[in-house]
Amino acid sequence: MKKFFSVEDVVDIYDLIKEALLLKKNPYSFQHIGKNKTIGLVFFNPSLRTRISCQKAAFNLGCSTWVLDIHRDSWTIEMDDGNVMNLTQEHLKEAISVMSLYCDILAVRTFPNLSDKNYDDQEIIFNKILNYSRVPVVNMESATLHPLQSLADVMTIAEYTSFFRKKCKVVLSWVPHVKSLPHSVANSFAQWISKIKQIDFTITCPERYNLHKKFSNGAYITHHQNEAFINANFIYAKNWSSYLDYGKILCKNPNWMITENKMKLTNQAKFMHCLPVRRNLVVEDAVLDSKYSIVLQQAKNRIYASQIIFLRILQSLS
Amino acid sequence: MKKFFSVEDVVDIYDLIKEALLLKKNPYSFQHIGKNKTIGLVFFNPSLRTRISCQKAAFNLGCSTWVLDIHRDSWTIEMDDGNVMNLTQEHLKEAISVMSLYCDILAVRTFPNLSDKNYDDQEIIFNKILNYSRVPVVNMESATLHPLQSLADVMTIAEYTSFFRKKCKVVLSWVPHVKSLPHSVANSFAQWISKIKQIDFTITCPERYNLHKKFSNGAYITHHQNEAFINANFIYAKNWSSYLDYGKILCKNPNWMITENKMKLTNQAKFMHCLPVRRNLVVEDAVLDSKYSIVLQQAKNRIYASQIIFLRILQSLS
Amino acid sequence: MKKFFSVEDVVDIYDLIKEALLLKKNPYSFQHIGKNKTIGLVFFNPSLRTRISCQKAAFNLGCSTWVLDIHRDSWTIEMDDGNVMNLTQEHLKEAISVMSLYCDILAVRTFPNLSDKNYDDQEIIFNKILNYSRVPVVNMESATLHPLQSLADVMTIAEYTSFFRKKCKVVLSWVPHVKSLPHSVANSFAQWISKIKQIDFTITCPERYNLHKKFSNGAYITHHQNEAFINANFIYAKNWSSYLDYGKILCKNPNWMITENKMKLTNQAKFMHCLPVRRNLVVEDAVLDSKYSIVLQQAKNRIYASQIIFLRILQSLS
Repeated sequence: MKKFFSVEDVVDIYDLIKEALLLKKNPYSFQHIGKNKTIGLVFFNPSLRTRISCQKAAFNLGCSTWVLDIHRDSWTIEMDDGNVMNLTQEHLKEAISVMSLYCDILAVRTFPNLSDKNYDDQEIIFNKILNYSRVPVVNMESATLHPLQSLADVMTIAEYTSFFRKKCKVVLSWVPHVKSLPHSVANSFAQWISKIKQIDFTITCPERYNLHKKFSNGAYITHHQNEAFINANFIYAKNWSSYLDYGKILCKNPNWMITENKMKLTNQAKFMHCLPVRRNLVVEDAVLDSKYSIVLQQAKNRIYASQIIFLRILQSLS
Repeated sequence: MKKFFSVEDVVDIYDLIKEALLLKKNPYSFQHIGKNKTIGLVFFNPSLRTRISCQKAAFNLGCSTWVLDIHRDSWTIEMDDGNVMNLTQEHLKEAISVMSLYCDILAVRTFPNLSDKNYDDQEIIFNKILNYSRVPVVNMESATLHPLQSLADVMTIAEYTSFFRKKCKVVLSWVPHVKSLPHSVANSFAQWISKIKQIDFTITCPERYNLHKKFSNGAYITHHQNEAFINANFIYAKNWSSYLDYGKILCKNPNWMITENKMKLTNQAKFMHCLPVRRNLVVEDAVLDSKYSIVLQQAKNRIYASQIIFLRILQSLS
Repeated sequence: MKKFFSVEDVVDIYDLIKEALLLKKNPYSFQHIGKNKTIGLVFFNPSLRTRISCQKAAFNLGCSTWVLDIHRDSWTIEMDDGNVMNLTQEHLKEAISVMSLYCDILAVRTFPNLSDKNYDDQEIIFNKILNYSRVPVVNMESATLHPLQSLADVMTIAEYTSFFRKKCKVVLSWVPHVKSLPHSVANSFAQWISKIKQIDFTITCPERYNLHKKFSNGAYITHHQNEAFINANFIYAKNWSSYLDYGKILCKNPNWMITENKMKLTNQAKFMHCLPVRRNLVVEDAVLDSKYSIVLQQAKNRIYASQIIFLRILQSLS
């Protein structure tokens, strides 16, 4: 694996999930591969799970890590080309090129601006990063995708379905939020799920909240949440801002919150969320604290999702 | 050892001190125990000594570490239950549970609010953290206690008294300060000292500055600093806000500052402070820079205090 | 090597460069020396290259590291002596002394104030740090010098001149900037270059921008940039504020920017800069993106510059 931007960089998703679950059983079995290797973690935006799970994954592989919170620890970064840099201190080109000299894998998080749809959709920033880096780049969340999260999510579903031997219905449900949020988790989840034939996939969201078709293709889409929940085995809750009216909040209807009552419509579905989650806005305490909630299993799998990706890249280096 | 919240988690304090002093002589003798173990250090509040000494202690044991400054690196944290989280981004329950999945020991610093006495006294936050974590938790300072500091303090006294073979008089003296400070260092020091029979312990502070009885029980308490200093072998200086008038500053009398003249009342007492210390407000330069000052020995012992606690917990895991 | 403040701490600069270039070929050959050693990196000011290249250098040597951004992670620091510390939380003396207890080498970055010339020139802060530390100190940029950068710079020139077998002309050219910048990179570069006999060294800058003579001694100085560029083999671009009118910006003339046309005056000179660099203010895109730009080689050499210094100090410890 020469880079990890999206599921499209994965040759066989079933193999990848299988190996990630094997790593979970024997997390220290590849430490020789990480010897003298360094993974650089660069954050343009805050992080808790991604930051720490990637560090833990690197430790498990015997790698050293450095972490840079770029706007805070270093300089203001110029993203555009050709400007006279009166206001910014360092161009993305130099920043990324240089950082890539100091590590063997560069993992980067950068959020969308949620104002310029084309700019975000074309992943301008991440593609520049891919272009500037001298070493393989891992996507720790970009303008439109969050593939390490999605890999952890499908691993979790694999664990609860005896590796997809049971057919299952997975529902991605839009939920209310107070802020304008990226589409990356939802896009990426839809994209990964679409590669797993055994999954019957439904997306439910308010009108004008449909995701970009290139990610949600193949999903059954409905604006009736109750209908979607019937017979579901997994409810994945996530807010996103409108894609059509790009970055706008069109709906704050609290009826979209996941409640215990709604969960009763399902086939004893597991409750999933990528975290952080706003309690009693996105989901009722009663659901998040119930035995059906598997959000911590998802979070735990973040370690092994990162670890298998780092491992595959390290293997391709030697 | 399954957790380290206070001295009450220690079976035999003399044994603990003895082993910590042995570690100081052979700091790298237990590196096999830390192999593939990770210690997570979580700061809700700033730190210099604790942050670095805990990292050094972990390195000495062969552990890897990650550090999270939670409000700055990640999300705003909801501490209360049942709220609609319109304003906060992640609940303490998820934050702690998840972080505890990414390490083998979770060390946490969280300060008191100094406004709600019962809330602080009951250690609501720290008890939640203990409850949410899936791995042993170490107290890097909580609302009412700072036990790693106190262990380093008693280690230092042990070094100067041939392991308590000489009886000694230890005085905890309140000193002036410009800010409202926690009681944790003073409480914790009093609590640890009270377990050591060979120490004659005096606390001196202005009126209405007495500490909570459950920590200061057994100490001789006087509001006359000069009286307290007579025959003292160790002067431990520390400011705290009023406990009776909770969190208030009732006294700014500069006469409580530790001066060279006052030290002359003692039996050539050593001067102790947990640091950071405000010079010429808490203590005169002449005292802090004298040969009687042992604040750096205390600081050095912070490494081995943390290390023995981490070691005991790691031993209990395997 | 007992400390690394400037080139004056180096016995034989040619030997040092030679060994640094050997390390570049075999970066992991001295890992036994770093075992159980810790390097502390302390930043009073932001950093990207220095922060990460020093971490990578430490990893290459088998050392562990901790990083402290002192004003942000810990307390406000009192730099002066004798004050009543009503406003600052910890004195530099305690901060440095304590940090030096938690590591084997202490590397520190601290910038000039650019207002009090004597204070900066005498390196008051750095000399205090040297005095307070119990372990060897490495200069990661001080008020007047940035020797790790300069070592990387001369290594880079060595690589392009078959280790100075070809005589060459090196030009340090002042360039425009919007902010008042330190003299450290320019001073230090001049000081290191002056030790290499095979280099013909020219400094070009506007009037009243001459550097302190003790660093620029031996250089040919001209206020005519075009004249300086003729026959140059290396153009090193760097802004600094006036030294005579200390810290002031006297010239913003954009004609001092390095352009493709100006580079044509040279003998196909390589373009050098320490980074971060403001594009189209300091240097045209066309130059920075050309094959003559060697700024990334300089940045890469930052690893081995730090590594050889850390290695020499570690060797002197044992």
